[in-house]
Amino acid sequence: MADGATQEAVLLREDAGRVATLTLNRPAALNALSEGLLAALQAEFDALSTDDAVRVVVLRGAGRAFCAGHDLREMEKGRAAPDRGRAYYNALFAQCGRMMTSIRRLPQPVIAQVHGIAAAAGCQLVASCDMAVAAEDARFGVNGVNIGLFCSTPMVALSRNIPAKHAFEMLTTGEFLGAPRAREAGLVNRVAAPEALEAETRALAETVAAKLSSAVSVGKRAFYEQMEMTLDAAYAHTGRVMAENMIHRDTAEGVAAFIEKRKPNWS
Amino acid sequence: MADGATQEAVLLREDAGRVATLTLNRPAALNALSEGLLAALQAEFDALSTDDAVRVVVLRGAGRAFCAGHDLREMEKGRAAPDRGRAYYNALFAQCGRMMTSIRRLPQPVIAQVHGIAAAAGCQLVASCDMAVAAEDARFGVNGVNIGLFCSTPMVALSRNIPAKHAFEMLTTGEFLGAPRAREAGLVNRVAAPEALEAETRALAETVAAKLSSAVSVGKRAFYEQMEMTLDAAYAHTGRVMAENMIHRDTAEGVAAFIEKRKPNWS
Amino acid sequence: MADGATQEAVLLREDAGRVATLTLNRPAALNALSEGLLAALQAEFDALSTDDAVRVVVLRGAGRAFCAGHDLREMEKGRAAPDRGRAYYNALFAQCGRMMTSIRRLPQPVIAQVHGIAAAAGCQLVASCDMAVAAEDARFGVNGVNIGLFCSTPMVALSRNIPAKHAFEMLTTGEFLGAPRAREAGLVNRVAAPEALEAETRALAETVAAKLSSAVSVGKRAFYEQMEMTLDAAYAHTGRVMAENMIHRDTAEGVAAFIEKRKPNWS
Repeated sequence: MADGATQEAVLLREDAGRVATLTLNRPAALNALSEGLLAALQAEFDALSTDDAVRVVVLRGAGRAFCAGHDLREMEKGRAAPDRGRAYYNALFAQCGRMMTSIRRLPQPVIAQVHGIAAAAGCQLVASCDMAVAAEDARFGVNGVNIGLFCSTPMVALSRNIPAKHAFEMLTTGEFLGAPRAREAGLVNRVAAPEALEAETRALAETVAAKLSSAVSVGKRAFYEQMEMTLDAAYAHTGRVMAENMIHRDTAEGVAAFIEKRKPNWS
Repeated sequence: MADGATQEAVLLREDAGRVATLTLNRPAALNALSEGLLAALQAEFDALSTDDAVRVVVLRGAGRAFCAGHDLREMEKGRAAPDRGRAYYNALFAQCGRMMTSIRRLPQPVIAQVHGIAAAAGCQLVASCDMAVAAEDARFGVNGVNIGLFCSTPMVALSRNIPAKHAFEMLTTGEFLGAPRAREAGLVNRVAAPEALEAETRALAETVAAKLSSAVSVGKRAFYEQMEMTLDAAYAHTGRVMAENMIHRDTAEGVAAFIEKRKPNWS
Repeated sequence: MADGATQEAVLLREDAGRVATLTLNRPAALNALSEGLLAALQAEFDALSTDDAVRVVVLRGAGRAFCAGHDLREMEKGRAAPDRGRAYYNALFAQCGRMMTSIRRLPQPVIAQVHGIAAAAGCQLVASCDMAVAAEDARFGVNGVNIGLFCSTPMVALSRNIPAKHAFEMLTTGEFLGAPRAREAGLVNRVAAPEALEAETRALAETVAAKLSSAVSVGKRAFYEQMEMTLDAAYAHTGRVMAENMIHRDTAEGVAAFIEKRKPNWS
């Protein structure tokens, strides 16, 4: 799963400078999230969480789509158990939820680079990333309802990205949003022409990678922590975070450089 | 209040296929929510909550408006009490809040079909529905502030639909939003030409009604439950919900049909 | 700091009718929030909180910008302490957070009138106001990340105004939003031509100032209280608030006047 993985690996990783790109690599299955792919993503996020050389992570899909969601064929095998799969499905959705929240817990920002379809858990993956850049013709849906499987875990991430009524409509109609509408609603940050998608995502990644990584990682963690607090608790918490940030050696250099109108000399 | 209610009933119900339509029927009072109408709505939502034949509910108003809010003339009578109406008004707003939250607790999705004015508690009714379709010339306001009665209970629903600053402006200026702006802000899902409003609402209702109702009702309940949880609690909860959904007999059929590229044979 | 303050005062206050205008007055420093300016703002908000003559507060900046954030030169002096400034920075961010939350706690609505740049804590100030009117060419950013100081306290207010992914992008790229985009995202209520900014802000302020102030202050407090509650708790709370509002003498007059189709005779 690390650099140099073969074509057969379900997840590819390529590091270029300070940006690591993870590519979902099950194109024949529209990058459906098999147990193997979920485990590979978890393993890479675990590895990245302590990888100081990487400043930003880009997540994309090989082939025609970003990600079509869970691997239904594989999931069907779970039904053979005496409990009709209850224990298996509970474990599977717990594994999936752990992977999704690992993105939020990762010190580095994660950017989804979306083309083609992002459906069900694939749409959840986009919503779980810190930012998303989409090709103009990308489409986003939580369409499990069409087969009688309401997208209950995807909606956790989706409803924290877009207004409630729009999320409810997507969940109960199974209909897809185009990229411009997804941006308007808050699911996507930027929309690019298909041929410019990779370059535009790369530009965003490099912009963030050029910042002081200690500040970015501290800020990312605090961002999600304070969102679940009352206003007063959020200020008490982030006030302390910002004071610690301020006395960090590299931040001292950054502030001094700004005042002296020169570039910071960050190690 | 059930089918066949006379013209005089303050609330009409008409079932067509799997869609029940409730019509606020006090057109001379712009469908103001009198105690009688609040009670009739509560009774219908209570009845619908156990009515398996109904998959989707549409809520609309007879005459020129969707709903102009509370019935102020009726409310004024409460002032005659020795406590100047405190007990009466507390009971009235509790009754109204119970009706509004019954919409959210109903197993079936509820769609507001809005024309004309949706004001004060009428705007709250739109915000409390799971989805809303509006005529191009519909207008939305929480204008109680104009008579010195801040729309404090309507804002509970409104502020969970649209951004805080836009809600605050509506509440303190009393100004109305047109339908396109209401859609942009998140209060409305779809905007239709006045002559197409009913057909467009019907189309949305039928789309949702065609889904597996057990999945929709389980998903709707979990949608609102998880919104009030932290991210981790939300995933723990919805993971269990989705596992139960997956082992449901009709969902098993839905998934099998999808894999076999055929229509599901749902009872 | 009160009326008649000299040019040298860091904060000016001018009352016209029922509207008080506070002007950040450190134009040479782009109105950076020095300790002195933070203290002056706190003192004015404390004074305004019991000033019944003022119905609405407008907050604006003198010179080329609304506010560029904290005063970095002044902050640098804190590093000389044996603890490298930890105690000082903790106290400073606590002071700043207290001032920002005082805006929310103020009985009167506060409107930011924004031109030029609103950066870092200056953007937080806009987000902390109840409403904001911006000149077409105003720009909004949380750009501390550019010098290694993540805008952790500004994001508390920002992330309660605009969608999560858009807030995250602003925080990690340091890039600025133009006024139209800020309005679309929810950070700004209205956008005006630069030459119309003052008049448009004034018109909004006068509209709100003309309402019954007891209703507005009760409603403002309840607005922010209920946002941090569950739906059921929010309805229980606001139901009581609205019942008390209804039996207020001036509201009784407002409702009676509405029914009698005349103007309310408010003292």
